[in-house]
Amino acid sequence: MRQLTMSKAFTLMESGPVVLVTTHDGQKDNIMTVSWTMVMDFTPVFAITTGEWNHSFAALRKNKGCVIAIPTVDLLDKVVGIGTCSGTDTDKFAKFKLTPVRGKVVAAPLIKECLANIECKVIDIIKRHNIVVLEGVAAYIDAARREKRTVHAVGDGTFIVDGRKLDRRKLMTAKIPCGV
Amino acid sequence: MRQLTMSKAFTLMESGPVVLVTTHDGQKDNIMTVSWTMVMDFTPVFAITTGEWNHSFAALRKNKGCVIAIPTVDLLDKVVGIGTCSGTDTDKFAKFKLTPVRGKVVAAPLIKECLANIECKVIDIIKRHNIVVLEGVAAYIDAARREKRTVHAVGDGTFIVDGRKLDRRKLMTAKIPCGV
Repeated sequence: MRQLTMSKAFTLMESGPVVLVTTHDGQKDNIMTVSWTMVMDFTPVFAITTGEWNHSFAALRKNKGCVIAIPTVDLLDKVVGIGTCSGTDTDKFAKFKLTPVRGKVVAAPLIKECLANIECKVIDIIKRHNIVVLEGVAAYIDAARREKRTVHAVGDGTFIVDGRKLDRRKLMTAKIPCGV
Repeated sequence: MRQLTMSKAFTLMESGPVVLVTTHDGQKDNIMTVSWTMVMDFTPVFAITTGEWNHSFAALRKNKGCVIAIPTVDLLDKVVGIGTCSGTDTDKFAKFKLTPVRGKVVAAPLIKECLANIECKVIDIIKRHNIVVLEGVAAYIDAARREKRTVHAVGDGTFIVDGRKLDRRKLMTAKIPCGV
């Protein structure tokens, strides 16, 4: 995994891939599957919706950090599996044969098998809407990975795989910040 | 366009399509392009990030309503065009040859040419993060439309078109609410 310039980190998230969010509670690593995410700026500030019904939420609130790991279509069954069991009684890294890799800033681990990882600090929790606001502080991408297609959760148990890419950069020059 | 049961409305948004958001300021209709959106629940509650830099924001704040219209890939150049001009000096419905259709609840219009439309009430504005929280109150889908592929903005001027759909409903039965 090579480090990615932070000005491009929001482009890992804007298209709405289902992501894995890792946490560390001081003793154990955990992973949750999240598709309720939002880019909030051209800077790496993201929102996710989560709350006390997720075992990971206590670690997020306590340690104020997490990693957003971006899986690709070959990992879909692990993504679904992680989203349908709980860290209360499961070591998800062991069960799903994923490799935790220590990052540089937060205690939560990167996931080696994912296409990209973003270390994030929790900068706000909006309790009345269960929104957690994250700021990306370091990003990594596995550029050598062959499978790069991410997956979009529909919410009914089906998932849409990335199809072809269309380029409208010329039309959007005025809207895209320098460095993206 | 036929009406869609509200319990399924979040599935129009969860996969992260770029959307068009219409408003009505008391005199004029307007449209903005938004890809910073988030599903917040299995109920039709959505967040979008926007603020005073968007001409539409004043109408959203004043009239507390909007329509989320979901375009498909055949409309991509209109979506990009709408996102790169302003309602301050442009009648976007006229310029992009789109047809406003009055809904049942809010003053903002549906867009006839889109795959789906969700009438929404503004239920909160979180000023410190420029987050507008919306509650869907009526949803419509053009089931007869041939092109159903939505488009996901990467944020760098490129867009990913929906590819194939994978079904994991059996594995997720316990997580999906009844009626979705």
